[in-house]
Amino acid sequence: MPQHRYLLTEDKIPKRWYNIAADLPTPMPPPLAPDGSPLQPEMMTAIFPMELILQEVSQERWITIPDPVREIYALWRPTPLHRAAGFERALGTDCKIFYKYEGVSPAGSHKPNTSVPQAYYNAQAGVRRLATETGAGQWGSSLALACELFGLECKVYMVRVSYDSKPYRRVMIETWGGECVASPSRETNAGRAILAEHPDSTGSLGIAISEAVEDAATREDTNYALGSVLNHVLLHQTVVGQEAVEQMQMAGAQPDVVVGCVGGGSNFSGLAFPFLAQKFAGADIRVVAAEPASCPSLTRGVYGYDFGDTAGMTPLLPMHSLGHSFVPPSIHSGGLRYHGMAPLVSHLVHTGMVEARAYRQLDCFEQAVAFGRAEGIIPAPEASHAIRGVVDEVERAREEGVSKTILFNLCGHGNFDMSAYQQYLSGEMIDSDFSQDELDHATAELAQMPALPA
Amino acid sequence: MPQHRYLLTEDKIPKRWYNIAADLPTPMPPPLAPDGSPLQPEMMTAIFPMELILQEVSQERWITIPDPVREIYALWRPTPLHRAAGFERALGTDCKIFYKYEGVSPAGSHKPNTSVPQAYYNAQAGVRRLATETGAGQWGSSLALACELFGLECKVYMVRVSYDSKPYRRVMIETWGGECVASPSRETNAGRAILAEHPDSTGSLGIAISEAVEDAATREDTNYALGSVLNHVLLHQTVVGQEAVEQMQMAGAQPDVVVGCVGGGSNFSGLAFPFLAQKFAGADIRVVAAEPASCPSLTRGVYGYDFGDTAGMTPLLPMHSLGHSFVPPSIHSGGLRYHGMAPLVSHLVHTGMVEARAYRQLDCFEQAVAFGRAEGIIPAPEASHAIRGVVDEVERAREEGVSKTILFNLCGHGNFDMSAYQQYLSGEMIDSDFSQDELDHATAELAQMPALPA
Repeated sequence: MPQHRYLLTEDKIPKRWYNIAADLPTPMPPPLAPDGSPLQPEMMTAIFPMELILQEVSQERWITIPDPVREIYALWRPTPLHRAAGFERALGTDCKIFYKYEGVSPAGSHKPNTSVPQAYYNAQAGVRRLATETGAGQWGSSLALACELFGLECKVYMVRVSYDSKPYRRVMIETWGGECVASPSRETNAGRAILAEHPDSTGSLGIAISEAVEDAATREDTNYALGSVLNHVLLHQTVVGQEAVEQMQMAGAQPDVVVGCVGGGSNFSGLAFPFLAQKFAGADIRVVAAEPASCPSLTRGVYGYDFGDTAGMTPLLPMHSLGHSFVPPSIHSGGLRYHGMAPLVSHLVHTGMVEARAYRQLDCFEQAVAFGRAEGIIPAPEASHAIRGVVDEVERAREEGVSKTILFNLCGHGNFDMSAYQQYLSGEMIDSDFSQDELDHATAELAQMPALPA
Repeated sequence: MPQHRYLLTEDKIPKRWYNIAADLPTPMPPPLAPDGSPLQPEMMTAIFPMELILQEVSQERWITIPDPVREIYALWRPTPLHRAAGFERALGTDCKIFYKYEGVSPAGSHKPNTSVPQAYYNAQAGVRRLATETGAGQWGSSLALACELFGLECKVYMVRVSYDSKPYRRVMIETWGGECVASPSRETNAGRAILAEHPDSTGSLGIAISEAVEDAATREDTNYALGSVLNHVLLHQTVVGQEAVEQMQMAGAQPDVVVGCVGGGSNFSGLAFPFLAQKFAGADIRVVAAEPASCPSLTRGVYGYDFGDTAGMTPLLPMHSLGHSFVPPSIHSGGLRYHGMAPLVSHLVHTGMVEARAYRQLDCFEQAVAFGRAEGIIPAPEASHAIRGVVDEVERAREEGVSKTILFNLCGHGNFDMSAYQQYLSGEMIDSDFSQDELDHATAELAQMPALPA
């Protein structure tokens, strides 16, 4: 019988996170204060604990994972590496396809890999409460779980349109003891200002971030937590790739291509960074980031300084951006609906270490259904972009007459996304592309920002 | 760091199913034809393939699992055994609590353990299509997945009230290529007869079984598949307990008590039977079946012959029953809403090998939420009955001043049951008990059936 899953025992949960900043062939531009001046650490201490700030700026290659964090990781880690034998057969390819499956976490995705250490460091620092934003709810539920496990309160500002139309992630947050409010809310100045102007606002991730940051900045007992984009978040996700390196060795295989989907960049980085370390050392590995065609920050966005949120409250980050006022269309991959991209991922794409591709929603769902029928697991819509990227690689291999080994991150299951599958199966799913007007708008908006260092 | 999960490698997927019929201390009464005469094998061949009929009546202790079935099991098996360290802390007990977690299957429960071999044997026998019923959809989705993997068509008659109110399991069925219709439907005589009399019928499991059996009996290319109750279904589930026996050895522990929830009896049997084999051989193990107080076939029902369905189309089975015309109230544990009980489980309770307890829905949800907050995994409502049973054992141990080792089957996750959690958390969940009137009705109905052999 061919082997399907490669499992590691609990003692193989990584003991350290891998900090790719230590190995970058060229240095990253620094973040700036909102007014363009150098960013002072004090601007961060109001909303983050010192340990996370130190990780954000660290140049150390390895950062020790605290035992209490590893102990909670052990509830679901190490996660399995699967050989996608059924999907290979369905595609009729002689490429070898492997996937790391992060959907086995209690929240159903990779997000708890960072919510757990973030809650831990905040609890250690004496913080009593965390505030955050969430779109479809993957991140909000993961933070609620982590807060519950470390005895913190958790307040989640959930984008109104998701709060109303997808209530089950909200119930999950509440089941884990978190408090969830629709954003814009009447609980913050930011929320009230929006509601005064737009009483029927359906909200956006940008507005919800503003509310959560304001909550954290104005309450002594509260800090803020972010589920992607920042260096320390991507750092925490590297447990995924470190395990995968070991599991690929168990399988006697070495990936020619590593693929992940990108929104803010965290699941992609988690798998890819440990393999990029091999690439920096000379290994022949291609790394591909797959993003939605309707929110294509890497393939169509501008590389420059931009705000992380819509209201311009965050530092300026060096990243590929569609402009901080860009509101992505309501595709089902809520986790990929972000105007910017993690600075680390942007830098790696800018320097040619990572390739980026954009895929349309309908094409992604077509492959997600094919994958679910062949492998059993119904993928999260976000992960379907990675699957579409894999199929692309399989097609290229066929054209080139070669066989490749392809590894991708199946970052979550689709149990909370069945309404999206219903739309797809009934032929009612619509698609949208990024327009020239939107590109012009992004270009104009980024042109007003400080320039990147040469 | 204390160990949390005990994992087995793929080669440890059991190679044989354990057939408890070979080891029963006293023989089981035989099933009868609907008219009370001896059941002829030909009555079964219209809707089941010969291999499953042979398994249904087999007295062999071990039955080999075909390689193609083990290969599909390998998509998620062996499943993990967890030490519930967090839940132990939350309960403040020095009892050791372990759980086998079946929610890692693609469908999210133990059901694919039998849907896969059932689809396999039907495909081997040249059957092209399977028909079945489903309540909340756990079984229907599991069979759709198995049919897709073996190239069979799948038709699911889904109880109308679930079809309308819980559409996501239906979408899952369709994503895996199955066809799902609300029952009663206009596609069968049974369905049309009900609709003629009750045009607004919300359906019942009994009606849906009648439709699926009629579909299978009247179409040459179609067989019927059942997700619980029958001997061969329970047989297939014994992979759960066989793995758990080995994993408890890895943990250096031996259970004093084994607990599972019961509706038709399949997840309970899957875990319990291999431990009952130890009990038959003299081991000091108690085995507890936990059922809903509102559908208490084992604790309040009558032990006798009854039909497996409402319309009286199935053979008469020797079992604990609340009467085949009993319609259980709409508790959220759709998988436990069955008027009868597997004959094997009934026999084991009747002969004192298994204890039965009934728990109220609100008490079960209280413990499900506590478990979810301590262990991360949000349990299926069905499984919450097992958790309530565990808490009961912990309380008894405290009273007795002893420490016990308790093992239970966490047979599924609650990702598709968040509306139930919403009801519980908002204080809107109601409870109901089995009434004296209902008991009188059951007693009268069973009194008209053939008597069990003395």
